[in-house]
This record gives sequence, structure tokens and C-alpha cells, in this order.
Amino acid sequence: LNILFLSQIEPPERWLPGLRAALPADRFFTLDAYDPAQIDIALVACPKPGILGALPRLQLVQSMFMGVDPLLADARFPRTVMLARLIDTGMVNAMGETAIAHILDWHRHHYAYRQDKLARRWNRLGQHLPSDRMIGILGMGELGTSVSQRLLALGFGVCGWSRRPRQVPGVQGFHGDAGLQALLAQSDALVCLLPLTAQTRGVMNAANLARMKPGGCIINLARGAHAVVPDVLAALDSGRLAHAYLDVFEVEPLPQDSPLWAHPGVTITPHAAAITEPRTAIQRIAANIELFRAGKPLPNLVDFGAGY
Amino acid sequence: LNILFLSQIEPPERWLPGLRAALPADRFFTLDAYDPAQIDIALVACPKPGILGALPRLQLVQSMFMGVDPLLADARFPRTVMLARLIDTGMVNAMGETAIAHILDWHRHHYAYRQDKLARRWNRLGQHLPSDRMIGILGMGELGTSVSQRLLALGFGVCGWSRRPRQVPGVQGFHGDAGLQALLAQSDALVCLLPLTAQTRGVMNAANLARMKPGGCIINLARGAHAVVPDVLAALDSGRLAHAYLDVFEVEPLPQDSPLWAHPGVTITPHAAAITEPRTAIQRIAANIELFRAGKPLPNLVDFGAGY
Repeated sequence: LNILFLSQIEPPERWLPGLRAALPADRFFTLDAYDPAQIDIALVACPKPGILGALPRLQLVQSMFMGVDPLLADARFPRTVMLARLIDTGMVNAMGETAIAHILDWHRHHYAYRQDKLARRWNRLGQHLPSDRMIGILGMGELGTSVSQRLLALGFGVCGWSRRPRQVPGVQGFHGDAGLQALLAQSDALVCLLPLTAQTRGVMNAANLARMKPGGCIINLARGAHAVVPDVLAALDSGRLAHAYLDVFEVEPLPQDSPLWAHPGVTITPHAAAITEPRTAIQRIAANIELFRAGKPLPNLVDFGAGY
Repeated sequence: LNILFLSQIEPPERWLPGLRAALPADRFFTLDAYDPAQIDIALVACPKPGILGALPRLQLVQSMFMGVDPLLADARFPRTVMLARLIDTGMVNAMGETAIAHILDWHRHHYAYRQDKLARRWNRLGQHLPSDRMIGILGMGELGTSVSQRLLALGFGVCGWSRRPRQVPGVQGFHGDAGLQALLAQSDALVCLLPLTAQTRGVMNAANLARMKPGGCIINLARGAHAVVPDVLAALDSGRLAHAYLDVFEVEPLPQDSPLWAHPGVTITPHAAAITEPRTAIQRIAANIELFRAGKPLPNLVDFGAGY
């Protein structure tokens, strides 16, 4: 098979040696030298809009990311071709580490002690047991499910919201609009791991934040557009939210004039919650390509109707 | 039995209702009204020096903390009486939460992203797998063992140092002076959970910090005197250490003129890594007192020779 490595941001030298070793029968090409008429598969990370539509023999697009909303936003994306999301165990684990880091930062009051440090203030705050805390997870796919199990292992209460009903051990499950309201009413903290769709855009808005228990936090590890920034800032300023941990933003890099930079109640990370890890991702990509070669069904194909 | 509740810092109303419910046959007294000649057991949290020596019938001192070094520093402490440390599962869990919070803060570069936020700088740093990281735990008692198992579950490499040889599943064990040097040479991060003794005082000094792998962190959750503050600051300033997470200090509250307050490479928490939790501690205290009443051996008695 002829495979085109198509990335504006991932360097080919980080990937191609491992890919060639894992798939020795296939030929890999980069943008430097390839024949559009010969490409069977595209491996993509932020490709230039329109470029996939110019590959007439293309049968499979393998994303190097979990989220595919930027690909689907390209009107010229060829919707007759299979599009596979990447479920990389290294990335799932990394997302779990980040979610736990932020939950514990809030649970142990570390965000507050950092403010106290600036004022040279020694002020021990009350301790909560993790079983006193309910964490609401928005999005119970591979990432949300993995995070839920880590939180349960630490002793936290966990509830989860998903588009369709889902049963995950130990997690109180909710779905649909009414389910979201019920989840918010009992959540101290929210971890957002949703795909970005018309239904999930702006889910962290003033009305929904006001339904959470007071003094909690939000952790957005999904897409910037899931959070309505002025509403988040207002909830921080009113004291309703204790802290916001934001990894993703509608415009990235976050513009210099964003009010988020200077707000003491906001932790900013540069879309670094989980980075695709070639050591684990290459194994998964190679497995998908072997399934494709054998004519077998691929896991994690995108449903163009649902948008993820 | 007549039990005296002796604390300068824990409020009796937080403890006595639960203690009385758990031990209905015993009588509890506070400093307001007690007969020194009648006291069999003292429950202590930072008692006034000398007060225990003035209780002629005293047979058992039950600490409400894990660390007993302040008690042993009192020359009038009655060394013929049994002294029991408190191993409270709520506190052990809390210490684990705090250790994991700091390890992940360092592992995911959150301490660095906070500095970047102050400069409005968007700079994604390289990701490490937890299996790339070796965490050295100083002190492999109840706390260190519990923390080691949490770190292993997250995928980190873990080695541990203790006074006597100890076997803990998954943990590479070291002991003695030579063992400490070997542990330091392979550790990216150190978590200090040691008792404070003549042997452990100043263990985080310039020579030992220089043996660690560069770019790591130290997490001191034990006693302030385990870390030599000028040496820690020098290791931060040279870039040898990436960050120091300090919960304990030789003088607490940390004095206003300490250079630690203003240093950007230091996280300060107000001796809040783990707070004794009455809900779980009372069960353990009651169980110890029932063992004492039955004339059976108590766990976690202090060895006055070893100093913990």
C-alpha cells in the first residue's frame, strides 16, 4: 500500500522510522515527493484543507489524533472514505495523568495555597475525603472511561454523561439533556472529554455552571469551544467556581490579549494534556492498516452523522 | 480507664463525641477539669512540654499524629510509658493523594506552565511516559509503602530507601548509606516520608541533591529538618532541580522573611499534606485502647532507641 504522511505539525522523522519498521511491505511518502494518483492511505495530523480531496485512490484516512473535528470542518474532506480516529494507549494514559493531576490539585487545595504563597499567608484549609467529592465526567468514551476508573481507584465518587446510555462499572451514568442537568446538580468538579459537535459546543456555559455544587472546578481537556470563556470567568469571579483548568482554547496559541492569562483562578496548559506518543501509537496505526489490508472492519471509525 | 485529651491544636469537640461513642466504658477528660493522679491514658497532639511527666498513673500515650519527634524532643517525656504512633488510614490515603498530586504536577510540567502563564507564553514541552521516570521514596514505612503502590499503579518506576532492608512488591529496595547513594543516582524525583532522627536530619543536602538525575523534583512531606533550605534553593537556582514541593519547615508557620516564599521554583503548602481524619482515626485509637485494656501487644509502638 502507498501511504502518505500528511502533517503540518508532527515531524516525519519522529514517525517514519517506526512506521517503516512496523509495516515493511508498504511504501511511505511525504509531501516532498508523492504521486497523488497512487496514494491508498493518508496518515493525517492537521493536514492542509483540500489536500485529501485531491487523492483519487484514497480509501482510508487514519488520524494521528483522537479528535477529528478539524478534519470534518473541511468542506472538501472526502466523506466516502473511511476515517479512523487514533486511540493510542499512551495518549489515553497521558490524559488520565493530567485529569488526576488537576483533580488532586483542586481536592488538596493546591491552587489556593499557591495564591496564599504570593501573599506569604500560612492558612491550612479543611481536608475532604475523596468519597466526599463527586466528579462529573462529560464524555464517557475511551478517555472518559479510563479517567473514571482512575478516579474510582482514588476513592472519588464518579458520574458520567454521554450521548447514548452507557454502563461503566462504578460510574453513575446519565445521558441526554435531562441527564446532563441531573449530573451537574450533584457534581463538585467537571472533567470535559467530549467530542466537539453541535450538541456539545458551549456545554460549560453560565446556566450549566450555575447548576454545579459551589466551590468546585472545571477541567477542560477536550476543545476550547466546549467552554464559554466569559461565563467561566464570571463563575470564578462570583466564587461559584473555585478554579478552572483549561488545556484547550478556541484560538490556539491562546492570544496575548485573552483575559484568561491574567486571571488567578485559571490554570492554562498549552494543549498539552495528552500528546500522541509514537512509541504506542505506531503499534495501533500498524494494526489498523493490517485490518484494512485484510478487508476486516476497523475499530473507531468516525460516524460522519454523529460528527465523531 | 481515665483518658486525658491533650492537644494544643486539635479542638476537643471534633474528637470527643466520636471517642465517647466508640469507647462508652471509659471516661474522657480535657485540660479544663482532670485529676492528674487518675489518668491512665493520654491522647496527645502537641501537648505542653512536661505535662505528661506529671501524670503518675500514666501507662499509655497515644499520639494523634504519625510523627512523634516533637514528643521525644521533650526531655521530660516519660520513657517508661508506652508511646503509640497513630496509623490512620484516612491520613495514609491523604498523604498518597498529596504525593501523587505533586509527582503528576512535575511529570506533566504544570509547575513550568504556571511560570509560562505569568509571561503569557505558549510553549508545549515534551511528554515523558511514566515508565521513563524513576521516583525515589525516602522512608518505606506505612506511608512510603502506600505511596509506592500508587506510583506503580500509574506506571512510574519506583525505588525505596529505608533504615532496615525491606521487600515491597514492585519496588527496588535500598538501605544504609551506600544504598542511599545508589537510590539517588537513579532517581528523577524524591518523595521524603522519613521519620526525623539524627540519621535522617538534613538528608536533602547539596551533596545528595547533586547525585540525583538533573531536572527532577523533591517533595518533602516529612519534617522541615530533612531538607537543607539553602542547598535546595541553590539546586533550584542552578537548574539542577526543576522544582521543590515543601509541606514542612523547621519553623512553622514559615516565617515571613523566608526566601522560600518568593522563590518561583518552590511550592509551599502549610503542613497540610495529610491531616488526621477523626472519622478514620477514632476507629484506630479505640482499637488500640481495647488492645491495651485486654493486655495485648499494640502495633506501632515507638522504639525509643531508634527514635520512631
